[in-house]
Amino acid sequence: MIGRRGFFSLEGVDGSGKTTQMALLAEALKRQGREVITVREPGGTPVSDKIRRLILDPENAIVPAAELLLFSAARAQLVSEVIAPALQAGKIVLADRFGWSTLAYQGYGRGMDPAPIRELFRIACGNVWPLHSFLLDLPVASMRARLETDGRPADRMERESAAFFHRVREGYLTIAGENTDRFTVIDAGQAAESIHGEILAQLIPLL
Amino acid sequence: MIGRRGFFSLEGVDGSGKTTQMALLAEALKRQGREVITVREPGGTPVSDKIRRLILDPENAIVPAAELLLFSAARAQLVSEVIAPALQAGKIVLADRFGWSTLAYQGYGRGMDPAPIRELFRIACGNVWPLHSFLLDLPVASMRARLETDGRPADRMERESAAFFHRVREGYLTIAGENTDRFTVIDAGQAAESIHGEILAQLIPLL
Repeated sequence: MIGRRGFFSLEGVDGSGKTTQMALLAEALKRQGREVITVREPGGTPVSDKIRRLILDPENAIVPAAELLLFSAARAQLVSEVIAPALQAGKIVLADRFGWSTLAYQGYGRGMDPAPIRELFRIACGNVWPLHSFLLDLPVASMRARLETDGRPADRMERESAAFFHRVREGYLTIAGENTDRFTVIDAGQAAESIHGEILAQLIPLL
Repeated sequence: MIGRRGFFSLEGVDGSGKTTQMALLAEALKRQGREVITVREPGGTPVSDKIRRLILDPENAIVPAAELLLFSAARAQLVSEVIAPALQAGKIVLADRFGWSTLAYQGYGRGMDPAPIRELFRIACGNVWPLHSFLLDLPVASMRARLETDGRPADRMERESAAFFHRVREGYLTIAGENTDRFTVIDAGQAAESIHGEILAQLIPLL
């Protein structure tokens, strides 16, 4: 997949600080006078939000293939309704997770074959793919500690085992290692301002 | 896709009489002492039924790629939870629509490329595919007349244009023509008992 100018994603497990970094990054780019939109996967359109609720509801016993297809459906809707028109209009799009997370969670985490997952990207995204992605890397123990202190009840994905999240983290690192030209791996254990500085330094020359 | 012994689907547009034929067929096979389950797409499991409501709700403006992926997600769940275990247990599975309808509706109807649709079948179904399918063929005008007299409000799919259903019908006939070894085309304008007789005569030798 060829990356699209102006499109960037933050990848990483829950608790890695993506939300904070999205906000800091959007703010910094807006201060430079740029038009920025932020999107969060799965979700971001009325239909995608309904799919999100279905995916995350702990009551739903969803099989791996169906989960993969639901994530892809939410993404197809988001790309078509929001991301593609924004890029077309010259805006910067910042995504809180995109396809790489599908490879990490459903591919490495659930043990599904990566080849059909990449085929799904073509169906769901067409030629819309991030130009560059930032992996906020965090050891599983730190992630667990952060999630336990935030007080929110765990959703269906967050209830997965530590072994699952170990596979997801290793998956993210493998993907970043195989795509060094389009990935920056960042130690998410640092202070938020340091992480923000690293992201901004990498991103600005790509605009 | 190789067909699985004991697995049959009825294909065709709404109003073609699939529901009536499913009931007659299941009854006839049960009278012969066989174990039969019937499934309806999209739906048939708690998760698939939730996806079904999302797909059919006229309030949801779903883009073609997302629609295709949602149908596939519902199918993956149905195959894994219901169809595969039933076939494994030696039961007969009768499906009110299966993958061929996706090719007819999303491929021919919506004009999507059939190659990735077939790729989705592999992701959603693995090696679970009907051994033989029966196309209840009906001219679009007859279909419209039947749907208008049944008094039920039209769902999101049924609200499509006559041109859409012409493409779907032609699609079904093309698919059946390309797969003559696994398809029987039946004139759905006949009396229900005649149609039932035709289906039964074809199906029994395949058991």
